[in-house]
Amino acid sequence: MQIANLRTSMSRQEWLVVGTAAAATMLAGLLTILNANSVLIFILAGVSLSLLAALVGIATDQLGAHLGSGATGVMQSALGNLPEFFVGIFALRAGLIGVVQAALVGSILGNSLFVLGLAFFVGGLRHGTQRFASETPRMIATLTLLSISALVMPTLVSLLHTPAAGHEEGFSIACAIILLVVFIASIPVSLKGGPICLPTEQKEVTSSWPIWLATLVLVGAGIGAAFVSDWFVQALTPAITFLHISPTFTGLVIVALAGNAVENVVGIQFAARNQVDYAVSVILNSSLQVALGLAPILVLLSLFIGGAHLTLVLAPLLVAALGLAAVLSTVITYDGESTWLEGLALIGLYSIIAVSFWWG
Amino acid sequence: MQIANLRTSMSRQEWLVVGTAAAATMLAGLLTILNANSVLIFILAGVSLSLLAALVGIATDQLGAHLGSGATGVMQSALGNLPEFFVGIFALRAGLIGVVQAALVGSILGNSLFVLGLAFFVGGLRHGTQRFASETPRMIATLTLLSISALVMPTLVSLLHTPAAGHEEGFSIACAIILLVVFIASIPVSLKGGPICLPTEQKEVTSSWPIWLATLVLVGAGIGAAFVSDWFVQALTPAITFLHISPTFTGLVIVALAGNAVENVVGIQFAARNQVDYAVSVILNSSLQVALGLAPILVLLSLFIGGAHLTLVLAPLLVAALGLAAVLSTVITYDGESTWLEGLALIGLYSIIAVSFWWG
Amino acid sequence: MQIANLRTSMSRQEWLVVGTAAAATMLAGLLTILNANSVLIFILAGVSLSLLAALVGIATDQLGAHLGSGATGVMQSALGNLPEFFVGIFALRAGLIGVVQAALVGSILGNSLFVLGLAFFVGGLRHGTQRFASETPRMIATLTLLSISALVMPTLVSLLHTPAAGHEEGFSIACAIILLVVFIASIPVSLKGGPICLPTEQKEVTSSWPIWLATLVLVGAGIGAAFVSDWFVQALTPAITFLHISPTFTGLVIVALAGNAVENVVGIQFAARNQVDYAVSVILNSSLQVALGLAPILVLLSLFIGGAHLTLVLAPLLVAALGLAAVLSTVITYDGESTWLEGLALIGLYSIIAVSFWWG
Repeated sequence: MQIANLRTSMSRQEWLVVGTAAAATMLAGLLTILNANSVLIFILAGVSLSLLAALVGIATDQLGAHLGSGATGVMQSALGNLPEFFVGIFALRAGLIGVVQAALVGSILGNSLFVLGLAFFVGGLRHGTQRFASETPRMIATLTLLSISALVMPTLVSLLHTPAAGHEEGFSIACAIILLVVFIASIPVSLKGGPICLPTEQKEVTSSWPIWLATLVLVGAGIGAAFVSDWFVQALTPAITFLHISPTFTGLVIVALAGNAVENVVGIQFAARNQVDYAVSVILNSSLQVALGLAPILVLLSLFIGGAHLTLVLAPLLVAALGLAAVLSTVITYDGESTWLEGLALIGLYSIIAVSFWWG
Repeated sequence: MQIANLRTSMSRQEWLVVGTAAAATMLAGLLTILNANSVLIFILAGVSLSLLAALVGIATDQLGAHLGSGATGVMQSALGNLPEFFVGIFALRAGLIGVVQAALVGSILGNSLFVLGLAFFVGGLRHGTQRFASETPRMIATLTLLSISALVMPTLVSLLHTPAAGHEEGFSIACAIILLVVFIASIPVSLKGGPICLPTEQKEVTSSWPIWLATLVLVGAGIGAAFVSDWFVQALTPAITFLHISPTFTGLVIVALAGNAVENVVGIQFAARNQVDYAVSVILNSSLQVALGLAPILVLLSLFIGGAHLTLVLAPLLVAALGLAAVLSTVITYDGESTWLEGLALIGLYSIIAVSFWWG
Repeated sequence: MQIANLRTSMSRQEWLVVGTAAAATMLAGLLTILNANSVLIFILAGVSLSLLAALVGIATDQLGAHLGSGATGVMQSALGNLPEFFVGIFALRAGLIGVVQAALVGSILGNSLFVLGLAFFVGGLRHGTQRFASETPRMIATLTLLSISALVMPTLVSLLHTPAAGHEEGFSIACAIILLVVFIASIPVSLKGGPICLPTEQKEVTSSWPIWLATLVLVGAGIGAAFVSDWFVQALTPAITFLHISPTFTGLVIVALAGNAVENVVGIQFAARNQVDYAVSVILNSSLQVALGLAPILVLLSLFIGGAHLTLVLAPLLVAALGLAAVLSTVITYDGESTWLEGLALIGLYSIIAVSFWWG
């Protein structure tokens, strides 16, 4: 009976995501056990990660439908970057600090430049100049700019040879704690439907899952993401050595995309449907979550999980790129207007930054 | 008869400021003569400076009530940073260039990040999302951004090893003169009630002082500030050596706060009373006065007063922090909206910057 | 009969430009043949270039009157920087890379800081605080900010000692191609009267030239500009050696002004007539054309014309100045308001930047 119930409560599209995610996860696991070609495992695990990320998102929304919009916001904040979180943990245990730092920056660049650009480009081609209510996006952009300013201070301290240059780890921890305080403080704001709570009425929850199913899928996808992240990180070093890709480029572009791919499609679909308000909010909020939540959490956790300690002292060019992305996405959001040409210029800038990290 | 007159024309609050300022000043003077513990003198002189700064502010407003709003604006511009000016002069004569530079930057950071953040935080907790007419704040923020851009050029020239790198003093003087020309040009604008004239009708001048009293208090507070500044600077080096605080941190946080403490409380009170327009204008205007007036005046005066010559070649991290503060306060002002979360993030960023200068 | 026709179809002002341009061009040519004093030739060729630039502008507008507003926009984009383009080509063939790079940056700084400042100053003194519809200026400013962000990446890559630091030429070419793609994509937008098409109805075409005359003047002015550019570049090195001016200052200030002088006067005239919308659009659009079109075209052409290869690796201070100009002109445009004080501050900042390049 429960199976019949399941069939009616899940839409065909949702079944498709569940099915392919499960298949990709099992196949990636099988190949890892069989010691198959690492490039193949790397690609398959990457695809699997994207699908599991999408599944976590769907299950969070469904669970949220039972708990109210505030709770949904909190869960989205907490679980939205779950796959990236697992990849970060396993990569840190493997000592791949550079990859983790590049992936964090790449996630912000990918959202604030590439995905935002794609959304403007697609939306603009279909609907001409698009106007959007800029209050929520402005608030998110401002908070992101503030978070990124805090995030780059350790690198500036280190780069500019200040007397604090010998204390990067302590200073990174101090920055991480302060950022987390702001992150935690922002959660009740989301609960009350405050300024950084995304508009929820525009979401189309096409079918309603029972609470046990949503929980089950969420837990299943989470456990799956943990396993797949492990295999993904194991395959990463041999795969990129074979393919001659630099670790920074891998983190900045490939890892960042794998963790956000399906979510990004959703943001772009909203723009294509002329719901630019929602698209811009969703896309910029992803950047904010990484800067304000994921990055400081990984810094603090790296002290306890063994492996390398993550600091916020990044490669200078990563910091420069972060600064550009933060300023540009703020300026573009304050505008309250978007055109496909702006979108194309954003995509162009993202390409130039990505190319600049190609040489390793 | 004049004493009786005095009692009615001064409010209880004003009497309190006059009394405690006089007491603190005399005590600080006594301890200096007695060669008391320098930490004690340093703290007492700092408190005394804050109170004298407040007194100069009150007396300026009272004198202004007799002279019209334009003249008040000019006097506020000229006298608002009087205590900081005296501290700067004495510190330069004592050769403490690093402290003076840090105090100038700290004054801007303190206003544009910490005090603005506190105002948003307190105002937002009481009144929810606050909206403010952003024309005057925008104009002030834009001029501040322009002034800070000019202010950082000498450091950029020096840091980037340009051919002009051997001419820092001459170039600093050129920058100072150009900034002062803009500063002087801005004074008639204030006189006519122009764009950077602060709204005066919202000020509650609770009691009206006769003109002789306002002048007397102003002159008295000014002379007091000159003496206290001398004692403050004399005690500074032994005090921070004893307390193991770096000179840059001292200038950036302690000296900057001592010169602005009471004024800041006023700005925050306005936000708490939901007069955000006025609060934002007052707070940002303090930053503008430092960048456009105080800094270039000290550069030029340092050529004549003996002691070290002040240049605008700052520590690179100070310039980076200035840039962040300028961009962020502009973005936040253009928004026209404030929330307590934004305020908290501003306070967080200020804390991170202050911590980064802790190690000396 | 055609001469008589000519006399009626050209206004007195237009005759004046044609006459003085022709006279200055011939005189410059004569002096070059006679091997006259290089300083004299340099000045005369510079004046001649400004006049020919103005002539190209007038002829483009006249030809555009026959072809519709979209075509005018495209031709303005393509031909607006013709004299600067020729100077760039000849200077590259003479190996003067530093001069060309400085002239490109100087053209942007000159427009976005100096000319915009003059327009605000003159307009503000005459008409008080000026408000302008900020949609088109914002769009231009945003695209300029994006273009400049892309333009500075090669310098950042080189300066920050990244692994890509050995590949500056390849990376510059990649950036140039991406910028040109965006530039070409923006042309149909202008054709359709899209966001970066300048309002044309406000232009006063005082007399209507026949199509053959407009074409003739355009071709003549173009050929003249090519010759004069050659003489200008030949005289440049001996002239500045004699005058003890650094090559960077020459490029940044003198070459940049010679290519834009008359156009700038037009922009300022619009502000003086209280048509600020149009003034801001015209002035900022000049910067955008240089960043998005002229700079990448010169990078790509330099690979084929012999002489030095132009890269986008600029002197770090040029990049810092570009960044300041881009951020400031964006902030000031988003404001939607201008005052003479803002204008004065912009002129002050431009002066400070120009002075910083004086020492060579």
